Amino acid sequence: MEQATSYELLNKIDSPKDLRHLPADLLPEVCKELREMIIDELSRNPGHFGSSLGVIELTVALHYVFNTPYDRIVWDVGHQAYGHKILTGRRDRFCTNRKLNGLCPFPSPAESEYDTFTCGHASNSISAALGMAVAASRKGEDDRHVVAIIGDGSMSGGLAFEGLNNASSTPNNLLIILNDNNMAIDRSVGGMKQYLLNLQTSEGYNRLRFAIAQKLRKIGILTEERQKSLLRFNNSLKSVLTQQQNIFEGMNIRYFGPVNGHDVLSLTKVLKEIKDMKGPKLLHIHTVKGKGFKPAEKEATLWHAPGKFNKETGERIIPDTTGMPPLFQDVFGNTLLELARQNKKIIGVTPAMPTGCSMNILMKAMPDRAFDVGIAEGHAVTFSGGMAKEGLQPFCNIYSSFMQRAYDNIIHDIAIQRLNVVLCLDRAGLVGEDGPTHHGIFDLAYLRPIPNLTIASPYDEHELRKLMYTAQLPDQGPFAIRYPRGRGTQTDWECPFEAIEVGKGRKLKDGSDLAVITIGPIGNDAAQAITESEAHTGKSIAHYDLRFLKPLDEAMLHEIGKRFHRIVTVEDGILKGGMGSAILEFMSDNGYTPVVKRLGIPDRFIPHGPVEALHAICGIDKTTIYNTLIHLLEV
Amino acid sequence: MEQATSYELLNKIDSPKDLRHLPADLLPEVCKELREMIIDELSRNPGHFGSSLGVIELTVALHYVFNTPYDRIVWDVGHQAYGHKILTGRRDRFCTNRKLNGLCPFPSPAESEYDTFTCGHASNSISAALGMAVAASRKGEDDRHVVAIIGDGSMSGGLAFEGLNNASSTPNNLLIILNDNNMAIDRSVGGMKQYLLNLQTSEGYNRLRFAIAQKLRKIGILTEERQKSLLRFNNSLKSVLTQQQNIFEGMNIRYFGPVNGHDVLSLTKVLKEIKDMKGPKLLHIHTVKGKGFKPAEKEATLWHAPGKFNKETGERIIPDTTGMPPLFQDVFGNTLLELARQNKKIIGVTPAMPTGCSMNILMKAMPDRAFDVGIAEGHAVTFSGGMAKEGLQPFCNIYSSFMQRAYDNIIHDIAIQRLNVVLCLDRAGLVGEDGPTHHGIFDLAYLRPIPNLTIASPYDEHELRKLMYTAQLPDQGPFAIRYPRGRGTQTDWECPFEAIEVGKGRKLKDGSDLAVITIGPIGNDAAQAITESEAHTGKSIAHYDLRFLKPLDEAMLHEIGKRFHRIVTVEDGILKGGMGSAILEFMSDNGYTPVVKRLGIPDRFIPHGPVEALHAICGIDKTTIYNTLIHLLEV
Repeated sequence: MEQATSYELLNKIDSPKDLRHLPADLLPEVCKELREMIIDELSRNPGHFGSSLGVIELTVALHYVFNTPYDRIVWDVGHQAYGHKILTGRRDRFCTNRKLNGLCPFPSPAESEYDTFTCGHASNSISAALGMAVAASRKGEDDRHVVAIIGDGSMSGGLAFEGLNNASSTPNNLLIILNDNNMAIDRSVGGMKQYLLNLQTSEGYNRLRFAIAQKLRKIGILTEERQKSLLRFNNSLKSVLTQQQNIFEGMNIRYFGPVNGHDVLSLTKVLKEIKDMKGPKLLHIHTVKGKGFKPAEKEATLWHAPGKFNKETGERIIPDTTGMPPLFQDVFGNTLLELARQNKKIIGVTPAMPTGCSMNILMKAMPDRAFDVGIAEGHAVTFSGGMAKEGLQPFCNIYSSFMQRAYDNIIHDIAIQRLNVVLCLDRAGLVGEDGPTHHGIFDLAYLRPIPNLTIASPYDEHELRKLMYTAQLPDQGPFAIRYPRGRGTQTDWECPFEAIEVGKGRKLKDGSDLAVITIGPIGNDAAQAITESEAHTGKSIAHYDLRFLKPLDEAMLHEIGKRFHRIVTVEDGILKGGMGSAILEFMSDNGYTPVVKRLGIPDRFIPHGPVEALHAICGIDKTTIYNTLIHLLEV
Repeated sequence: MEQATSYELLNKIDSPKDLRHLPADLLPEVCKELREMIIDELSRNPGHFGSSLGVIELTVALHYVFNTPYDRIVWDVGHQAYGHKILTGRRDRFCTNRKLNGLCPFPSPAESEYDTFTCGHASNSISAALGMAVAASRKGEDDRHVVAIIGDGSMSGGLAFEGLNNASSTPNNLLIILNDNNMAIDRSVGGMKQYLLNLQTSEGYNRLRFAIAQKLRKIGILTEERQKSLLRFNNSLKSVLTQQQNIFEGMNIRYFGPVNGHDVLSLTKVLKEIKDMKGPKLLHIHTVKGKGFKPAEKEATLWHAPGKFNKETGERIIPDTTGMPPLFQDVFGNTLLELARQNKKIIGVTPAMPTGCSMNILMKAMPDRAFDVGIAEGHAVTFSGGMAKEGLQPFCNIYSSFMQRAYDNIIHDIAIQRLNVVLCLDRAGLVGEDGPTHHGIFDLAYLRPIPNLTIASPYDEHELRKLMYTAQLPDQGPFAIRYPRGRGTQTDWECPFEAIEVGKGRKLKDGSDLAVITIGPIGNDAAQAITESEAHTGKSIAHYDLRFLKPLDEAMLHEIGKRFHRIVTVEDGILKGGMGSAILEFMSDNGYTPVVKRLGIPDRFIPHGPVEALHAICGIDKTTIYNTLIHLLEV
């Protein structure tokens, strides 16, 4: 790998305007420097890696050709936007990327006017950009360009299709760039992927058609007035030249491509040619995730977010985790495989996250027992419902914040029929550096109102295994299990399976002066705070692990209501409507009047940063719990 | 219109088995009787009309060809399933359709084994049926057929696309029937519609290809072993015969059609020909909504759910509403137009419900100021977000239960950026005869945890107008307004516009012995109960209209907390996490310890029936409120 000791060009680019002043033949060098800067920085300060490398040339070409920020660039899943951040005035702050109070992990309109729309969840760029393009046209800003970038992985999401379906239904000049790398985080799946592969076979036609359009433009006849006749011409040309009708063109979106997405000069040329064409259009480019860093090109999934690495040798610097408890993800993945071996009805379902949620363990061992359905959370849940209706036992694993995409599917397709689907909500609670779009803080509150649904959260790895075992016992109905990103507390996690009575909590420790009720692994922090505050005050505190948000352990709560006048609830979720609220409802409905102090996430979006720091900001860290207990005990 | 005095054939069909015993040439007569029965019954007992008439022939053909219930028929939006209900043992109970304790308005697995999956919300049939087809294949039930029916309107929903995208990714024999009538409830829109229209131009090719397949079958060479070579043959044939590649075939789903969906014998023949072909396949049929009843054929939207009518003259029997308060929908529609005339930034957005939510009033008067985006709730919200980002002021109107489809879009695409989108949740609360899939009872609970969101509900029509006016004032951020189906209380609804202070409730009436807090129009019932219980007990009751679930009127709640020891909350929404829960949180957080009795929807799915009856079942009717007040006042 060559290395630049300085960034001669980049250092002069404080905004895209500076980039646009450069002669085109320097653009490859800009790309080279940008790539080096990202590799260098990411080797020390971990983040999303492969995606940004894949769109270096596209990023440079976009800001070179379009008049940003007046022209709107809308990214889809913004973990590819590091190059964009560096070129748009954030070069010097790029070393703060993903850190507390540093640059946001994804484009954020609050951070920069170049970041046009929130883009943490996949597949929203076409819809958002269409709104912007329509607005531009309504406001008479016909010179404003709006560009949506979308990956082939995101294209499998229903929202992207809904956007496409509407892109031609009202006058607008939207440009969609389909960044096709045959990957989401894992390899993309489904008919659309196949379709895009097939599209390449029509390359000859498209190249010819494009060459003709260029010629027409050069000799000055591609005026707006001639647009319609050109379209007619295109159609005739197509009839002659190809046996293939393109789905995009079928939906009245003009199609261009495929084009090599790593040739910045070609990209620039193509973008210049098509940018002022009227009407919605799509440019299909091919890129390679991790481009320019060989190990990442070879193993794209591993290098999606590789952690620190040695940029010279290409070796990932894997922290020594000997003696540490396992990741909840891996406990899930291994346990699912164990259960699947025992229970033939079990089927795994994941929307494009087999590696992230460790369902790849099952997939590897029993490839016919798990489905990756692509980025399609709604479908993942409804498809699971269909299988459950026929007697199978799906475990559908979706990150908590992405489960928001499947909310109606849970209610309408699962809960009404009380189908035996286990919904596993990975990445629940504050997730850390990925920030507000990825925090899984709403799930307890949004799941709790749904009838027929069991909602549980494990205190530790053993509990996760027991809950998973319990959930797949016959006729449990819909069963949600939420657990966080990262490690638990048990190194000897492989406990034997054991059924838990549904709706049964645990008294972890008795006490007489105050009761603490927790749900999930945050209970471990509470347990430490309890020990310390008991030591400090000499009083005794009972600790209850609620375990099931629904159904509530009414016997346990009656005991608490009868015995305690002071209760503290702690949850790694939003306070409004969450677990503490459920406790208030129970106490009120049953005539108990304790003082209840609820600790949880306040009513605002929480930024990115280390989980511990965010817990402190939200007041659910050990210190705040301790202070709360001391304060209440002294009242 | 001809009329049968008896139903000679239908009366002998107690299950599809009886139908299958008939010779094929009697099927047209079965269709005729079925159509007459539906027209006759619906003329007296109102329900969904046009959709069921449109699929009479398809319904008969499906149950004739397939071995139901062993074979699975999965409807999409089940308001078309009346014929299906009549043929599957529910003929005698059809007169109870939509009535309390009567037949369900949509297919319901709890009601019949022929009803395979919940289907109140559009676009879920492919995903659910794919799950069933995969399960059949996993369980070695290779003789089990699974058929998903989906309308072209539902095909615009992202979930349908996600299902299609996955239909070919695992071995299964799913048959998808695309029922193309160019309608959802209103006319369908978008690129997909255009695409389907274009498909007809390739009819020649498809007819030829199908004829060849039939021949091959007849002469016995269409065996499973030859499947692959036939597919290759098909592709070559296509290259020769057409310039069009079909999107479905592009996604590895074999395409057949288009076929006339009102020729029951042809349909039967086609279905027999393709049912045992391996792999996923799609049959495209053309039907006419309201087929066989001229007025309904002409005005499909009007006759989607026409109410009672005279089946001889074709005249709808429109109840005299003179002197009655207007529908909330019409107040919304008229007010939106008024506001749009004053505020040029206002844009209306509806996902396929312009008539239902009365946005057609704006569309008619100012056609360029409103968008029907098709059945695509997620896109409707994100698209609104894009427009808001550029300074427009969208009013996005979505039925409360359908808004569940856009949950992540509200959080991720609107609330994080605090965009100025007004979310209008029509059909909030218990909707009556449409039942559990359509009750809008979760919205208060699922919206409340979302930061940056204002949530309001009007007490009456005047309040709705004022809230709508307030919501479009500059920089209000995301603003949800929920209101029910049906009429309010104000005949003189056209009050002047007036801004409401956001987060400000109203004391409707003072009192000293107890406080009632309500939100939305259910407050009117509470007001009556208050008057009556004051008369009965001689005590005085204060009535507060909370108006804003978020932000809470803290000053008002402090007043209540300080003055009252007894509080009753009443809401037309689920109790868990709802408005009463918000009151408990406030009281607890601020050290008040009143007795709070919360009235609202209990933790179960509520059946269909008249709204008044359902209110009584849930304990939010006037009588229950009255009894609650009396009881509390006497404690």
